Amino acid sequence: MLRMTTACCLLLQLACLAAAPGAVPMEITPVAPGVWRCRFGQPEALTPTHFRSAPIAAEALAAMPAVDKPPLAAAELHVAVSARGCSLRLPLGTDEGIYGLGLNTRWFEKSGRRQMLIPSDGPEDPAGPSHAPVPFYVSTAGYGVYVDTARFATFNVGNVAPVEDAASGAGAMADNTADLYRARGLAVRHMLVEAPAAQGVDVYLFAGPALLDAVRRYVLFAGGGAVPPLWGLGMVYRGKSDFGAADGLSLARKLREQHIPCDVFGLEPGWQTKAYSCSFVWDKGRFPDPDAYLRQLRELGFHVSVWQHAFTHPDSPIHEALRPMSGDYRVWGGLVPDFALPEARRIFSEHHQQVLFGKGVDAVKLDECDYQPFGPEPWSFPTASRFPSGLDGEQMHSLFGLLYQQTLLEPLTAANRRTWGLVRQSGALAAPLPYVVYSDSYDHRCYVRGLANQGFGGLLWVPEVREASSLEDLYRRVQTVIFSPLAQIDPWYMKLPPWQQINAEKSNRGEVMPEAPEATVIVRRLLELRMSLVPYLYAAFNEYRLHGTPPIRALIMDWPGDPAARGIDDQFMCGPSLLVAPLFAGQASRQVYLPRGRWCDFWTNEILAGGRSVAVRKPLDQMPLYVREGAILPLARPVEHIAADTVFELEARVYGTPTGPYVLYEDDGLTNDYLRGQQCTVI
Amino acid sequence: MLRMTTACCLLLQLACLAAAPGAVPMEITPVAPGVWRCRFGQPEALTPTHFRSAPIAAEALAAMPAVDKPPLAAAELHVAVSARGCSLRLPLGTDEGIYGLGLNTRWFEKSGRRQMLIPSDGPEDPAGPSHAPVPFYVSTAGYGVYVDTARFATFNVGNVAPVEDAASGAGAMADNTADLYRARGLAVRHMLVEAPAAQGVDVYLFAGPALLDAVRRYVLFAGGGAVPPLWGLGMVYRGKSDFGAADGLSLARKLREQHIPCDVFGLEPGWQTKAYSCSFVWDKGRFPDPDAYLRQLRELGFHVSVWQHAFTHPDSPIHEALRPMSGDYRVWGGLVPDFALPEARRIFSEHHQQVLFGKGVDAVKLDECDYQPFGPEPWSFPTASRFPSGLDGEQMHSLFGLLYQQTLLEPLTAANRRTWGLVRQSGALAAPLPYVVYSDSYDHRCYVRGLANQGFGGLLWVPEVREASSLEDLYRRVQTVIFSPLAQIDPWYMKLPPWQQINAEKSNRGEVMPEAPEATVIVRRLLELRMSLVPYLYAAFNEYRLHGTPPIRALIMDWPGDPAARGIDDQFMCGPSLLVAPLFAGQASRQVYLPRGRWCDFWTNEILAGGRSVAVRKPLDQMPLYVREGAILPLARPVEHIAADTVFELEARVYGTPTGPYVLYEDDGLTNDYLRGQQCTVI
Repeated sequence: MLRMTTACCLLLQLACLAAAPGAVPMEITPVAPGVWRCRFGQPEALTPTHFRSAPIAAEALAAMPAVDKPPLAAAELHVAVSARGCSLRLPLGTDEGIYGLGLNTRWFEKSGRRQMLIPSDGPEDPAGPSHAPVPFYVSTAGYGVYVDTARFATFNVGNVAPVEDAASGAGAMADNTADLYRARGLAVRHMLVEAPAAQGVDVYLFAGPALLDAVRRYVLFAGGGAVPPLWGLGMVYRGKSDFGAADGLSLARKLREQHIPCDVFGLEPGWQTKAYSCSFVWDKGRFPDPDAYLRQLRELGFHVSVWQHAFTHPDSPIHEALRPMSGDYRVWGGLVPDFALPEARRIFSEHHQQVLFGKGVDAVKLDECDYQPFGPEPWSFPTASRFPSGLDGEQMHSLFGLLYQQTLLEPLTAANRRTWGLVRQSGALAAPLPYVVYSDSYDHRCYVRGLANQGFGGLLWVPEVREASSLEDLYRRVQTVIFSPLAQIDPWYMKLPPWQQINAEKSNRGEVMPEAPEATVIVRRLLELRMSLVPYLYAAFNEYRLHGTPPIRALIMDWPGDPAARGIDDQFMCGPSLLVAPLFAGQASRQVYLPRGRWCDFWTNEILAGGRSVAVRKPLDQMPLYVREGAILPLARPVEHIAADTVFELEARVYGTPTGPYVLYEDDGLTNDYLRGQQCTVI
Repeated sequence: MLRMTTACCLLLQLACLAAAPGAVPMEITPVAPGVWRCRFGQPEALTPTHFRSAPIAAEALAAMPAVDKPPLAAAELHVAVSARGCSLRLPLGTDEGIYGLGLNTRWFEKSGRRQMLIPSDGPEDPAGPSHAPVPFYVSTAGYGVYVDTARFATFNVGNVAPVEDAASGAGAMADNTADLYRARGLAVRHMLVEAPAAQGVDVYLFAGPALLDAVRRYVLFAGGGAVPPLWGLGMVYRGKSDFGAADGLSLARKLREQHIPCDVFGLEPGWQTKAYSCSFVWDKGRFPDPDAYLRQLRELGFHVSVWQHAFTHPDSPIHEALRPMSGDYRVWGGLVPDFALPEARRIFSEHHQQVLFGKGVDAVKLDECDYQPFGPEPWSFPTASRFPSGLDGEQMHSLFGLLYQQTLLEPLTAANRRTWGLVRQSGALAAPLPYVVYSDSYDHRCYVRGLANQGFGGLLWVPEVREASSLEDLYRRVQTVIFSPLAQIDPWYMKLPPWQQINAEKSNRGEVMPEAPEATVIVRRLLELRMSLVPYLYAAFNEYRLHGTPPIRALIMDWPGDPAARGIDDQFMCGPSLLVAPLFAGQASRQVYLPRGRWCDFWTNEILAGGRSVAVRKPLDQMPLYVREGAILPLARPVEHIAADTVFELEARVYGTPTGPYVLYEDDGLTNDYLRGQQCTVI
């Protein structure tokens, strides 16, 4: 499958690189065009590549431009090994912008910062933890580096000074606190990576020539991007946690009556007899007849997504079978299944096939699979845990979300069904996994930064909508979520939809707000915009699969040479042509950076020259949205939900002179037959 | 020296304790009466015991009650070893209160919490880091455990559930956030300790019978508590960072004119030509004649304490000599000396003998030797650092403060001079080191918790006074610091003393506040109370040295069986008889818990029955202060500073019928001759 270039046959054996104690020899191997593996020492066996979700997308990589040498010279890479693990030093130019390292929502460009790649339920942590730490970074210099480890790695991005770097950073007299702690510019920069415990490591280098090419190569190395079922691109609404069948149906019917577009209805913990930990057994009190309930939802045109976490309650029917295949510590009294074991996966997924998928459930929401790295009261399993597969607690924390996703994907894949799930932890090489990362955090600004950051790591992120501090806040949040990989309204602790009541307490008292009629109209119109974009987004996801191009991505990916784009983390590209610049509650106007070229205001069709920032105001029912000149934008007439027989009525808007052909993808939208050629493209 | 009991000759070789993977055999050896070493696997060589500051105080330990078996049964200890390091599980009763683990100021009793023992410049961190992490804890069940590691150890205190503990902590249905994350009570508790990298570990068990006995054994195992020079118990005032000789002298003279008690005058970074990093060279601009300046301060009756940190600027005369004896990363452009190497210590301390100690400087303030475990912009050396001694960055971080203290203590000890220094990082087995830990943090409530916590780890802590939000805040803070091991006013960023101006900005504009005359009177009176207590405190420190009893300690140490004392972290005992209950700004009154027995209000001589909490109000110039019934309290007539020829005029206040003899200690107060018998006791 992989077209080998002559470079591929070359195997370089390099001797000990430096006289530094602990330095280890390195072996460099090309693995695909523009991708090299540097092996230092004795890498651990149980790493993300070992548990990869999909094979390398070798054909797609082979179609990318060939590059004849690694983007970093082997002699510039230094690994040292000690009892603590291994540390790796790579070169870093003083002017390189560095992005990636997962789905942290506090930082964008990483220069000058230490980032600790530890899975966490708090993605706004300045130290780097997130719901999806990924030991991969890309540089504006046009290359990417992936460190294949399931350890809690630390990346020191240009903020350490080797002793040989003379007096880099030495100051004169500082006699005030501001001076004392100011990070002084270092004349020479390095990337210092620490991976605990490992006595060696595989480092993969991804060539450019541009930053986006390095990202593409990484995504294709991971197996290519996930493609949602068509209904996965519609709206998702999740019911309140304790809703029974009657409440759920009643709400689902209201959504249809109010003509609120919705493709997926979500069930939260209350479907089970026990939760925290989970029994995975329908509660017959709240759900006397689960089959009938699911059938009724299906008849209303809803797909169903069901919440759970993996920690298995002693009352669960699979508890005893899982016990020998679990970790040696419990969480909330439940077992921690060792999803690295095929047999544990089988027991867990067969049960879910029986209680969920076999009954027509199409997706799951995998909660609580992250960790709490720095809190005093972590509730997840300790890092000292041991699992029968040989994984320890640290490795399992890094891999838990990935393995959990794979486990519940298996029965659906076996049934040739696509899914579009939610997960609270992901990680390295996750691009092919059809799950979107969500969070309990709720900072709109950080949510948007997450949208900008997700693409650097082959991840998908949803800035879901729950309550709101004002109507403005509600509209602005909805305007963000409709441009995300999964458009979810998730008022899991509220009785009423947020367009009927933005306040959680009032919602649970059943108080509809006076502005509900107006709010319903505005939200409906915004959700309809999302529905108009479904074919456009579907095309973008197919490009993600085939070429590795993230469907939603930071501006720096498309304009790597533009210094102004380097720090822009409150705007993003959605698909090839749309630039989204969300407004936040309290902002009467905002600055929007339009990269070079010409742009068309989506709402007014006003043409704007790029290469500058413009001050933008928008009414409450619109967000700043711009179309790249030369784009063809297919807009569908919005449907309320996407059925198997839905035919999209498309209007192709052409903005200026098209720069090239535009490809739309057409398939059954439901199965994996498209992977076997059952897909048409419309140009 | 050590009187061996028969038990001491017993060496137990235990076989593999459990079938768990990675479990390692254990060897248990008595090391002193009531102290046992359990050796698991292959412990690392470079641990706190390897670098101990003083030999075990074997005679004092031998004088303690003999105990014939370890407080924890060997079979209850389980160590497992993996690539990550080792993990140790110890039993923990559901009703045990656990204290210690260093100088964190956020928590007191540790049950239910994970505490990470990482040196930090932020001691209020809920995760456990502090200026002095110490892998030692004590239990109300009357025993102590010390894990001899320089690794960043994690202590999971009763918050983990081994899989065999059935359904401990499993819940039913939780459908709201409060329920979801509530820590559920575990039916069985364990202490789970993780030490990275190590392939084995020595664990020391300290017998009681009471909690305080276990603390004493730990302090004596460390070598016994430090004794200050008499002047060290007087007041310390530090000048503003950029003060030159003229400013310093002018302020020093004003202190004398205003009859503010003061024994030590402190110089901040500005004495050097370069700071951040440090040159260790007098700045001849600000200090044209350092010898004359130091002589003048001495003539005014001041001892001098000089600030520095260890990171050695390229311009320093010792930079080149230290370079081969330093770590492989710089901090602020300066070298990180490897103080584990005798030769590095020699170069560093000889230079300081020349520029500081030889000129009459009596003490140092060792700054910035801590770390920033979770921040995105740590300024200290990376954990991946390597040092010529074989220490890595993690180990060095744990040991850096300890080794730095030792390095600058050596020339003074060689000259038979006592010192009383300041340090921003300490750690395990630090009891014999004559340094007090200080912080940039400034939360008065946490400062007081630090005073309560310090004693559990053989540490000393100063809640220094700088600016204040109100006069009340100033008085309340001064009322706390006068009961601490080192009574320091440290307005290092303010021109005027805080009793002249509490606001930093106004202070630097030279604005004296209108209330200055009244504030000066009140503060002077409080400092005079401190001076009255010097002989009493000196006796308490000698008890610390001889018997290991912390001079300042939490109530639970003296009343381990009193459930009400378990959580009291806003009161502390000072010496054998004084109970201090600081007031905080904004508190009109507070509850004070008086343990069983009778207590006398220091100010009113009112007798109060104990075993209860009382509501207390005190005017701004007094703090709640109680004397234990049966106490003899020697109060000195306050002097402004303590000279070699100072004779204390003592008034011995007797509170009720004395419960036993009271011992005062008399010696030269300056040299270490007291260690060689040159000390009298007055009963």
